[in-house]
Amino acid sequence: MGRLGGWLAAGMAVVVLCGCVTPTVTKNAQAPSPEGAHMNLRSMGSFHVGGREVAISGKPVKEVLLTPGGVPVKLDPNGIYDVEQMYVQYFLPAERRGGWPMLMWHGGGLTGVTYETTPDGRPGWLHAFVQRGWDVYNSDAMERGRSGWAPLPEVFKGDPVLQTKPSAFERFRIGAGEGSYNDDLSRARVLPGNQFPVASYDNFVKQQVPRWTTTDEAILRAYVAEIDRVCPCVIVFHSQAGQFGFRAAQARPDKVKALVAIEPSGFGEDSRMDAYRNIPVLAIYGDYIEQDARWPTIRRNGHRFYEKIRAAGGQVEEVDLPTRGIHGNSHMLMMDRNNADVAALIQQWLERQELYH
Amino acid sequence: MGRLGGWLAAGMAVVVLCGCVTPTVTKNAQAPSPEGAHMNLRSMGSFHVGGREVAISGKPVKEVLLTPGGVPVKLDPNGIYDVEQMYVQYFLPAERRGGWPMLMWHGGGLTGVTYETTPDGRPGWLHAFVQRGWDVYNSDAMERGRSGWAPLPEVFKGDPVLQTKPSAFERFRIGAGEGSYNDDLSRARVLPGNQFPVASYDNFVKQQVPRWTTTDEAILRAYVAEIDRVCPCVIVFHSQAGQFGFRAAQARPDKVKALVAIEPSGFGEDSRMDAYRNIPVLAIYGDYIEQDARWPTIRRNGHRFYEKIRAAGGQVEEVDLPTRGIHGNSHMLMMDRNNADVAALIQQWLERQELYH
Repeated sequence: MGRLGGWLAAGMAVVVLCGCVTPTVTKNAQAPSPEGAHMNLRSMGSFHVGGREVAISGKPVKEVLLTPGGVPVKLDPNGIYDVEQMYVQYFLPAERRGGWPMLMWHGGGLTGVTYETTPDGRPGWLHAFVQRGWDVYNSDAMERGRSGWAPLPEVFKGDPVLQTKPSAFERFRIGAGEGSYNDDLSRARVLPGNQFPVASYDNFVKQQVPRWTTTDEAILRAYVAEIDRVCPCVIVFHSQAGQFGFRAAQARPDKVKALVAIEPSGFGEDSRMDAYRNIPVLAIYGDYIEQDARWPTIRRNGHRFYEKIRAAGGQVEEVDLPTRGIHGNSHMLMMDRNNADVAALIQQWLERQELYH
Repeated sequence: MGRLGGWLAAGMAVVVLCGCVTPTVTKNAQAPSPEGAHMNLRSMGSFHVGGREVAISGKPVKEVLLTPGGVPVKLDPNGIYDVEQMYVQYFLPAERRGGWPMLMWHGGGLTGVTYETTPDGRPGWLHAFVQRGWDVYNSDAMERGRSGWAPLPEVFKGDPVLQTKPSAFERFRIGAGEGSYNDDLSRARVLPGNQFPVASYDNFVKQQVPRWTTTDEAILRAYVAEIDRVCPCVIVFHSQAGQFGFRAAQARPDKVKALVAIEPSGFGEDSRMDAYRNIPVLAIYGDYIEQDARWPTIRRNGHRFYEKIRAAGGQVEEVDLPTRGIHGNSHMLMMDRNNADVAALIQQWLERQELYH
């Protein structure tokens, strides 16, 4: 009770949740709340971009019953497949004020759900930017979510990775590093003052999907296909998408008007730094970086890359949120309780770049 | 040229498409069109329902580099996972006129994209019903899309199935059965007068995702969890979701106000027919049923089940669209060129059930 008492004294909401295993009960269910999630859209929809055809041969034919009591289907796995396409969902506000479309690219093991309703049911950055008048294109990276994936070892090499429940808690600066997670969340060691909605952590875990570690080039190709379809544009990208955002801009420098890098874990290629000369970059980092096992290195990798952009004549604004008086952010800044403050900071930067009217 | 000439004479649009293999070019790309896809929403967002925890043990720990140049992560696959959750995305119109929320459940090997923009870029049934004032909840079945899936053989038994490109063309009454597909779509044998947007068939293939054949019970549990969260409601369900719609209504008869079955391939349990006494059912079928290899049986299975509902005191309206003067519908009625006509028929039926104001 000592640790719990300390939290209560610090004013944190502590919810004691049942740790039992039940098949259909969500620990922290909330009814969809209309508060602040309104959108007046001149258009909403989706499409897929990219992908390629592959021909598979030499596999045995199976007969499969797809529905109990249905009619058996002969499944011949040989033939042509469409693979490596990417799903994009768009929300175009009635009153358009963003100078260009805004593409939102999520991080590893996640999908476009990253930018939707937060795990505790508040509006996400999708809402924040559509409501400000930005045309937002929110995608699921190739291999995940509504982009689909191919159960063909010829296409997706190696094993898919799904994180265990504690993983993001301990690696995304919600908990205090390795060993901080407890399935009874009231006993987990949360970083003091953390803005992540910890009581709804289970809902965040449900957003996680399998990823591969061998598919970077195909993911990048799909993002470039999206740029070719939708841009000129501004790209907001997070974590794993760091390398995709920075590399896609190198592939299509004339089509990218600004890059907003949210705690990127990967970067562009040293050989093509000229690409950034006319692409302003905003790089945002949350709290607790220095006390983490991995984040000081990732942060330094970022700074080193931004210095190369500057050396090549480009402009990068590096923002460590605590230095701006914004404290307690985890790696999932777009879900944190102060996500609206971080969105406002991005908006102000975009306005300073004259990308908004 | 004889076959092609015949089509042209029949007034069908024939688009000659490149059959070559290229990594990032969509054969039939279209820019997102705002025509008819507007939505004025009091709220929009998403959440996950259902799922359960599983504990995995005895597997080796791996060190993985998730981003090139990043910091290696020790991945211990042992521990607790959240599995079998389901993703639900909701669109709540500013002016609500539907008496209850409307749940949309897609068919096998697909996701909620089924009800969004059609493969050729027109508004889908999501638009049709939101624009009429229905609160629409569009989900990805457990195991697919943004619901995620678990690469754990302990949870998902057997192999996932992904269809080849010709499969849906030949089985969904777009082409004239087995052997009718041709990757050069101008040479494929389309059923005469077919309403599916054939020139955009590739975009439909891109919507397909892997499915399992062993997961029906977990899918059903997730749908029941959605009902417990969102309903009372009306459920619109398609194809594979036939069994889920009819069985979920049996599990929660007091929470289901109406069932709209679109070419269902599975049905409810004979032991619980009383459940349907107060749940009106609309069952809709497209064209070309009798000339297909599998659909006469599926249609008869449906009729037999509807007779059991009637015998138990329930009401079913069976609609074979050609008998109402609506011709040319494939299995994907919500994507067909006349999808608005079929939506209007559903709307009129719902109004007759006094579920709309």
